[in-house]
Amino acid sequence: MSRAPRTLLAGAFLLAASPALGQDVHRTAYHDYRVVTVADGLVNPWSIAFLPGGDMLVTERPGRLRIVRNGSLLPNPVDGVPEVFARGQGGLLDVVPHPDFASNRLLYLSYSKPLGGDESTTAVVRGRFEGDRLTGVEEVFEAQTRGRGHYGSRLVFDGGGHLFITVGDRQAPPRGDLESHPAQDVSNHHGVVLRINEDGTVPDDNPFVGQEGALPEIWSFGHRNAQGMTRNPATGDLWITEHGPQGGDELNLVQPGLNYGWPVVGYGVNYGSGARIHESTTREGMENPRHVWVPSIGTSGLTVYTGGAFPGWQGDLFAGGLSGEVLYRLEMDGQEVIVRENVLHGVGRIRDVRQGPDGFLYVAVDHRGGNPTPILRLEPVN
Amino acid sequence: MSRAPRTLLAGAFLLAASPALGQDVHRTAYHDYRVVTVADGLVNPWSIAFLPGGDMLVTERPGRLRIVRNGSLLPNPVDGVPEVFARGQGGLLDVVPHPDFASNRLLYLSYSKPLGGDESTTAVVRGRFEGDRLTGVEEVFEAQTRGRGHYGSRLVFDGGGHLFITVGDRQAPPRGDLESHPAQDVSNHHGVVLRINEDGTVPDDNPFVGQEGALPEIWSFGHRNAQGMTRNPATGDLWITEHGPQGGDELNLVQPGLNYGWPVVGYGVNYGSGARIHESTTREGMENPRHVWVPSIGTSGLTVYTGGAFPGWQGDLFAGGLSGEVLYRLEMDGQEVIVRENVLHGVGRIRDVRQGPDGFLYVAVDHRGGNPTPILRLEPVN
Repeated sequence: MSRAPRTLLAGAFLLAASPALGQDVHRTAYHDYRVVTVADGLVNPWSIAFLPGGDMLVTERPGRLRIVRNGSLLPNPVDGVPEVFARGQGGLLDVVPHPDFASNRLLYLSYSKPLGGDESTTAVVRGRFEGDRLTGVEEVFEAQTRGRGHYGSRLVFDGGGHLFITVGDRQAPPRGDLESHPAQDVSNHHGVVLRINEDGTVPDDNPFVGQEGALPEIWSFGHRNAQGMTRNPATGDLWITEHGPQGGDELNLVQPGLNYGWPVVGYGVNYGSGARIHESTTREGMENPRHVWVPSIGTSGLTVYTGGAFPGWQGDLFAGGLSGEVLYRLEMDGQEVIVRENVLHGVGRIRDVRQGPDGFLYVAVDHRGGNPTPILRLEPVN
Repeated sequence: MSRAPRTLLAGAFLLAASPALGQDVHRTAYHDYRVVTVADGLVNPWSIAFLPGGDMLVTERPGRLRIVRNGSLLPNPVDGVPEVFARGQGGLLDVVPHPDFASNRLLYLSYSKPLGGDESTTAVVRGRFEGDRLTGVEEVFEAQTRGRGHYGSRLVFDGGGHLFITVGDRQAPPRGDLESHPAQDVSNHHGVVLRINEDGTVPDDNPFVGQEGALPEIWSFGHRNAQGMTRNPATGDLWITEHGPQGGDELNLVQPGLNYGWPVVGYGVNYGSGARIHESTTREGMENPRHVWVPSIGTSGLTVYTGGAFPGWQGDLFAGGLSGEVLYRLEMDGQEVIVRENVLHGVGRIRDVRQGPDGFLYVAVDHRGGNPTPILRLEPVN
């Protein structure tokens, strides 16, 4: 290897720092790219999925599943999607094809399920997607939570027959001291990562199977609201991003049976009081995050890049930000974040980021001053 | 502990993101602060030191040591400073009082020492500072290097009788393959952290003492150009920041006898080629950085905060950036960087950051569109 002279650096820095939209070339440390609009006219797109035949699916939070085919957003949403609680953070949320979709045509959807009145919970259904309709829809999971917001709802298959599901803390208030918060208690579904079989049954080898009072589908707990989840196929590592409270969005490495500390420990603070509460950042028996964004960026969407279009990004995590209106690249040293690079900003609130079958990165823009919003694609420029 | 409602976050983020000068209140995750100019009219200030009697000393790269007393920059520079090679990156560089300065009045200075013609090297002198003059000046170290730039030159005492010194790679070109670069070779002073006794002699317990062909004052090697160094008094950890090549400024935890990999491994890249060179980021037997800035910020100045004025920042590292014109707070989980927060930007190129005896943070502005430049102070706002 050899290195470029340092004198090139200043130019690279200035260009990378400029806001970014349209057909301009964006420069980053490893790759130059162009931003292309691949679909527009969407309302709060939440999740992007790619099907073997070339279709792209997009959930819209108000409750529609949309198809982008041959570069066009089809006007009619997919029939057969369950009724959703389309208020606040609620609605139609994640969409993920089964790993064997090509043969079984199964799509999994997460959503906020109406429970009557102002109440709703996180639920997951699956159905066969054929003829642009969803049929045979059945529920594979319903969280035993009530409340508003903080649904979690990201879905990840491990390719070995299991489905991971995030469920947020549903903004549950503490019951007395912080240690008594529902997210600290494995008898309920507040603030968890779950692992179920693809049909909704519980795997025998889950960490809390057989533990009295524990829900056996729980894989990890003490989370706040994970709206990003991805699995590195090379290592098996399962990563989530969580909305923290003020100033403490987290990247966590999810491991079975572990407690991630919410709301007892964390990097959030009492804004205005001036003092960090030291005992709040770490405690024996509670896992520390691998990275924290301060200030918060409103993390949503997370993917590990494995494509060929951007060889310099292979193995890196990409995390979207809503309030931060930013896409970050996280370069790892094993399981530690070594580099955090802002690779895209100025395009609006980023809700989801996914790798397409072409190896390009696709970004769902939740909002940029109003609706409708687009799905964008990052394409390398050589 | 309890947490502030998340709704406060958006405001905090927006305010923290706004450029920052003057008497405005800057908001960060843990503390609000004000920026106050404590001295102005300086030319390329490189280092700030505080003396027990209340004086603040500032080196100016052109070769002057200045005194700030009772809030005023005295017009006359200190007599007795050695002649410096005041070209390019060269000049009068670091200034650090001996830990027992109150009794022995010893000041240590690093500088680029003229070797004739265009040549210079990194050297360290000490002298007694009395009556606003430096007397009895003697050299305690002269690096056996030639070349231009990349002097390193940060000085840190460990309080146990030793002085750490950084020496850059002097921009030495490789001799054949990268493994043959002088920074990979402990027979010379290119790209090293050194550890000497306060009188310039070599401690018996240095890692290369007794190794044939090695210079016994070397503590660690394979560095490029460390212009930030600090020691955490609570843990003894020695940290440096290094200017990387394009896109790869590093934070390193310095440990005795270890090879930090320059120029064989690192996170810098060939800009424009598009591809990261994977074998360049890590190699067995070479230490990985604990954090990397991509793009580069031109790291200079590093301090661990231990004061009482900003209790929420205790134990955090503060790193300045020249080209990035930024001050970063790095919050640690042990020896891992968990949070990187931009706490100050928009005030110009930051050359040095130090904690004052008042617990405030002092920042030397190298350049902000021209000279002269100020020393700024961050004061908490309650």
